[in-house]
Amino acid sequence: MELSLNTATVRKQWNLAQIIDGCARHGIRGISPWRDQVSAMGLSNAARAIKANNLVVTGLCRGGFFTAKDWRDDNRRAIEEAHELGARCLVLVVGGLPQGSKDLRGARERVREGIAGILPEAREAGVPLAIEPLHPMQAAERACVNTLEQALDICDALGDGIGVAVDVYHVWWDPKLEAQIRRAGKRLLAYHICDWLVPTRDLLNDRGMMGDGVIDLGLIRTWVEAAGYAGFQEVEIFSEHWWSRDADEVLDVCKARAA
Amino acid sequence: MELSLNTATVRKQWNLAQIIDGCARHGIRGISPWRDQVSAMGLSNAARAIKANNLVVTGLCRGGFFTAKDWRDDNRRAIEEAHELGARCLVLVVGGLPQGSKDLRGARERVREGIAGILPEAREAGVPLAIEPLHPMQAAERACVNTLEQALDICDALGDGIGVAVDVYHVWWDPKLEAQIRRAGKRLLAYHICDWLVPTRDLLNDRGMMGDGVIDLGLIRTWVEAAGYAGFQEVEIFSEHWWSRDADEVLDVCKARAA
Repeated sequence: MELSLNTATVRKQWNLAQIIDGCARHGIRGISPWRDQVSAMGLSNAARAIKANNLVVTGLCRGGFFTAKDWRDDNRRAIEEAHELGARCLVLVVGGLPQGSKDLRGARERVREGIAGILPEAREAGVPLAIEPLHPMQAAERACVNTLEQALDICDALGDGIGVAVDVYHVWWDPKLEAQIRRAGKRLLAYHICDWLVPTRDLLNDRGMMGDGVIDLGLIRTWVEAAGYAGFQEVEIFSEHWWSRDADEVLDVCKARAA
Repeated sequence: MELSLNTATVRKQWNLAQIIDGCARHGIRGISPWRDQVSAMGLSNAARAIKANNLVVTGLCRGGFFTAKDWRDDNRRAIEEAHELGARCLVLVVGGLPQGSKDLRGARERVREGIAGILPEAREAGVPLAIEPLHPMQAAERACVNTLEQALDICDALGDGIGVAVDVYHVWWDPKLEAQIRRAGKRLLAYHICDWLVPTRDLLNDRGMMGDGVIDLGLIRTWVEAAGYAGFQEVEIFSEHWWSRDADEVLDVCKARAA
């Protein structure tokens, strides 16, 4: 499986131009940028540099946050940017509970409506939407879609042009993971890897490098491949530890550990 | 719904004798002790003091940890203690991955076998076993049963004498929670309350007091009652914050917030 670098992995060391150069220099053929980095570099500059280096944009992070006020315009822009970058999908982090709310069911309804609302534009732009179920510990703050089953239920209700991004960090614990990956089939639009550390010291920024935790990455990969996924595996590590290391070294370790 | 105090809530301020006195003084009619506290007080002393104060033992915490080496003897003792205390159930925290293992499926098989292994003794002692699904963020370290659906699947395979403990902290995020509580019906042996704080700063010891977080406790309670549960609601708060407060004040707040 070819390697892609989610740019969050070295976002504190390098800007997007440096990350594009780094991928090229290290022979990493895929990249998945975050929109704030794209914006800082300029959309057309980013698109040009990525193309000049023959990188595949395995995803754009992120659309979503349908429970925020400006969700409509923000997702419209995200779709345009994903189109301009030729991204294989726009990753949706769907948003959690609105400030002060305990209405989880309501938030989930708003998410479904929001995705249904932007889907026609995404189809027209040729940008597949990838719902990323996030770990239940992030249900309140970042995403109220928390299992692959829940994400696929939304996909099935909406038809074409939508699928899922499976990040092992969020789903590795799920007793239904194998069955739901099989169910996903061609809806599997992105596959993200990292590891779950024991102990985990922070709910957001203590992800592990592949091999340093307890996720059986080899096993999950066989499920993903058996489901027909032929895309990249994308390293996405939010980690104060890895953000404090030399970025070239981080990329070397990513390559070695993903092999 | 009557109130029970899980003794972990004030474990750093008081020993079990003080907690029993505290419950009586505050008019809290249920108690759910941890075995280390029972052991420190002495089993027969604890049983006598609980009985003298007319407290209902809504559960004994805990059996389980079936992935540990001494699980057989430890669970046998736990069943005996639960019987001696007249506990309404023995709460099972089933255990996570063995040290150095990534074999989550294997751990789950061992858990099923372990529960099946102790169930005959539990039935004979008249001690219902209550599987407590733990939050997915504790899958590696404390319990590889992580959803109510998964716990109920185990119960259904094993028959009588076994049910579930539903702790809102662990399951509030689950999109299938309402349906699975309905499914649980008479298998619902214990109901634990607290709250999920935003942000949550620690994976174990940053639980919130009811009302301080984002869990819709009123709604979940209607589901639990509709399922036919007529037991206590048990406050269980692992929190450095509440452990640093005066224990009498903590009990006052618990009573006010659980009303």
